[in-house]
Amino acid sequence: MSDFLELAARRQSCRDFADKPVEHDKLVKCAEAARLAPSGCNAQPWSLVVVESPDKVKEVAACTQLLGLNKHNDKAQAFFVAVEEPATLMPKVASLLDSQIFAKGDLGGFVLSLCLEAETQGLGTCILGMFDRPKLREILGIPDDRYIFLLVSVGYPASDRVRNKIRKPAEEFVRYV
Amino acid sequence: MSDFLELAARRQSCRDFADKPVEHDKLVKCAEAARLAPSGCNAQPWSLVVVESPDKVKEVAACTQLLGLNKHNDKAQAFFVAVEEPATLMPKVASLLDSQIFAKGDLGGFVLSLCLEAETQGLGTCILGMFDRPKLREILGIPDDRYIFLLVSVGYPASDRVRNKIRKPAEEFVRYV
Repeated sequence: MSDFLELAARRQSCRDFADKPVEHDKLVKCAEAARLAPSGCNAQPWSLVVVESPDKVKEVAACTQLLGLNKHNDKAQAFFVAVEEPATLMPKVASLLDSQIFAKGDLGGFVLSLCLEAETQGLGTCILGMFDRPKLREILGIPDDRYIFLLVSVGYPASDRVRNKIRKPAEEFVRYV
Repeated sequence: MSDFLELAARRQSCRDFADKPVEHDKLVKCAEAARLAPSGCNAQPWSLVVVESPDKVKEVAACTQLLGLNKHNDKAQAFFVAVEEPATLMPKVASLLDSQIFAKGDLGGFVLSLCLEAETQGLGTCILGMFDRPKLREILGIPDDRYIFLLVSVGYPASDRVRNKIRKPAEEFVRYV
């Protein structure tokens, strides 16, 4: 197994964080991994808010607890908030395609890069797509015309158990021609 | 620098492939890395066509060469074709959000996982978003109601030079609160 396959297997949604603060430098390294992610025409259609001050972390955690979900975020130590920004594509491409066509895919790689780097730093992450967007916008001062793409909660995992991943077997989604 | 940061810095768009076939087993490992990618509600809204037979590779390469772009794909040895599939979300989530809301971000992580595993196998990749979708659909028998998300060309790089990445500096897209 390659190192990357091992890392991909180890990264999992962490839903039990330890009561242990996360070092600022580790969050910086996660942001650096995201910065290096690829994007269509290298447009980098993203911005990132790293929430680490305890008061703000509590406020953001509350935004994720809709419908009784995500109780585990009471113990999150930090959050990454990934925001979609306007993309400027190469003129040849922009003449044929909508300028935001690649943005959501690019942000998907951006967020996964954060999580993979967090995993190498011994941190657990949980990617969250459903949260109180208007409230979060207000708390973090994110402009109305920007889409808040995903939230990631961060902390040290309370346990080091790696669960088996539940995925479709290869033969159900890959074919070779 | 963590191993992952090093890997993220090494992965780059390869636009000069060597005249050297790519082993089937390496392509299988890339697909395995993608299989392990995270997705909203673990819906795995993706399928993958791995194109490796030389005749098909030539036909797919031709689909990428619009507007005089992507001449380098004449030397591609294989392609990954990532296709968006319908997502089934958890009922609580599905009651509030469009079922495909996370799919493009999920596919972004899926494709990046392919590319990162390829890099660990010594392979170069180039992610392509603009190509002749109707023609490709026909060549590969992809149903009309499925969106062909991205193509990735694959081969051994002709050179092992790692270019410096051109990216916004951190201070232009990250803030810490």
